[in-house]
Amino acid sequence: MNRIFNKADYMVEDMLKGFLEANKDIVAPTENPRVLKYKQAPIPGKTGVVTGGGSGHKPAFIGYIGMNLCDAVAAGEIFSSPTAAAFLDAFKAADAGNGVACLYGNYAGDNMNVRIAVRKAKALGITVKTVVANDDCASAPKDQAEKRRGVAGEILMWKVGGAKAAMGADLDQVIAAAQKAIDNTRSVGIGTAPCTIPAVGHPNFIIEDGTMEVGIGHHGEPGIKIEPLKSADGIAEEMLDLILPDLPYVSGDEVVVLLSGLGATPVMEQYIVYKKAAQILEDRGISVYKSYVGNYFTSLDMMGVTLTLMKLDEELKECIDLPVNAVGLKQF
Amino acid sequence: MNRIFNKADYMVEDMLKGFLEANKDIVAPTENPRVLKYKQAPIPGKTGVVTGGGSGHKPAFIGYIGMNLCDAVAAGEIFSSPTAAAFLDAFKAADAGNGVACLYGNYAGDNMNVRIAVRKAKALGITVKTVVANDDCASAPKDQAEKRRGVAGEILMWKVGGAKAAMGADLDQVIAAAQKAIDNTRSVGIGTAPCTIPAVGHPNFIIEDGTMEVGIGHHGEPGIKIEPLKSADGIAEEMLDLILPDLPYVSGDEVVVLLSGLGATPVMEQYIVYKKAAQILEDRGISVYKSYVGNYFTSLDMMGVTLTLMKLDEELKECIDLPVNAVGLKQF
Repeated sequence: MNRIFNKADYMVEDMLKGFLEANKDIVAPTENPRVLKYKQAPIPGKTGVVTGGGSGHKPAFIGYIGMNLCDAVAAGEIFSSPTAAAFLDAFKAADAGNGVACLYGNYAGDNMNVRIAVRKAKALGITVKTVVANDDCASAPKDQAEKRRGVAGEILMWKVGGAKAAMGADLDQVIAAAQKAIDNTRSVGIGTAPCTIPAVGHPNFIIEDGTMEVGIGHHGEPGIKIEPLKSADGIAEEMLDLILPDLPYVSGDEVVVLLSGLGATPVMEQYIVYKKAAQILEDRGISVYKSYVGNYFTSLDMMGVTLTLMKLDEELKECIDLPVNAVGLKQF
Repeated sequence: MNRIFNKADYMVEDMLKGFLEANKDIVAPTENPRVLKYKQAPIPGKTGVVTGGGSGHKPAFIGYIGMNLCDAVAAGEIFSSPTAAAFLDAFKAADAGNGVACLYGNYAGDNMNVRIAVRKAKALGITVKTVVANDDCASAPKDQAEKRRGVAGEILMWKVGGAKAAMGADLDQVIAAAQKAIDNTRSVGIGTAPCTIPAVGHPNFIIEDGTMEVGIGHHGEPGIKIEPLKSADGIAEEMLDLILPDLPYVSGDEVVVLLSGLGATPVMEQYIVYKKAAQILEDRGISVYKSYVGNYFTSLDMMGVTLTLMKLDEELKECIDLPVNAVGLKQF
């Protein structure tokens, strides 16, 4: 393994310190070393927006702290949920007295810790409501959507929720918009090489050379099938064959497309996949309103890509258009 | 190899098409498929700014097309210089009648092709002047600076040259500022795992597992030594031990720090290295005016990091502060 760190047990602490040092213009520390906040937060009069998740997904989650985006983020160990205490401290850091929207991903640990933190926040007089992202349409059948994981679609949920809050919406309106965002969003991932958690020192799952795993999760959760590695065009087709019928996305729809690398796949290759995906969407009469291509939600050094579509209406478009200034997402 | 493409020979074409499709709000095609331009270029009254280089370094080079940055970029094959014809067409795309600053890196192919293109441009009545980046202080001794390669420091040269041009400077002033930028800039790279050109199918150089190559180039050019892999702190120290004495950077200096991953090294690890680098600079009395950490100049799926410092004066600070809106660099 040729990875760069000091002590494996201190990687998250070291990373958070470096991140704070490098991005003082946007983020600030809190009393909890596992909680970072937007330097302006809490913003008087604004509904707070919080997320949190395991580390190793950069720029997620802390890279989405910023102007018109998240106010505070709780960081867990690599690929592990933040603690309930960290979620609670993130709520405190984000709350300006108007309540907090906690927009996070559907994983057992996160669900449990958010639930505890919401209860404790209530006891402190902080109202927290939640939206649980479940955009990974390969992670469970459609009729078991409550079992589906949240993946890169979370970014669009944060973008919408953050924008809505910045535009002056109250907590219920922010929650409704973020829920609509994720309800309109579907993602799928394809892995072409596994990742290695430095403390483990070798991949904790296998993707054989020359194969790809369709529907793989952000932590190497098993996908729905393993196939010989396809071309970029074949991968774009396979991902859209899973995504399009699931909502479904149909002719006349306007969508945001988010194509993210999983970490070690060169961005060059992501654009090659995007080219075909855009072509297929055009052929189907689906119009791309905005696209994001790059490493937006990664899994350490995993290889592969995820594709995410969000169907738009006027409210969602307005939210997507609002400028943001975060480390991981800047938009004029 | 678990890489994603269609035909290896068409990777650059496919990537450029996908890039154009995804980033229509910033970039536009030209008649030459290997030349992209800022959608506003040529900008009346402004000195044109052009660069170019081999592909596989995303977001370099095309990701630095945009507002207050480069007007046009020539793209070569993976790790190969653009043709003279592509450089010439980039000059044409950028020129608004005020001449063009061609700010590129010191490689034999680029030097030759730029020289030919400048001569042909002159025959067409387009004045082109050049600055050749040579910031890689591990690539040749200081007294042979003309042999040094250009690496991630090119980004700071483009930032300064692009800003100066946007602020209304004439060609000679843009050239002088860009030359000062690169003269004040030093970089060094450390590789921890090699990269694979898809058409080759296996790494075309070796970095043994558990070792690192100090001073490695962006295409796997040999460094100055191979050592057992150090900690993140050790890597930060080793890079600064090469960079600081070379200019030299001394107590009281203000600098921009650019820490880039080489492609497959997780951004998390880059922040761990940055933390130590920032600490060392503080201990030496060198003040960090601005820092950039992330995948700013990569080499396909190579692992490792590069560190770049630029010493600032008031003119350079003003240029660094100017907002930019490009795919690879957005700054409010």
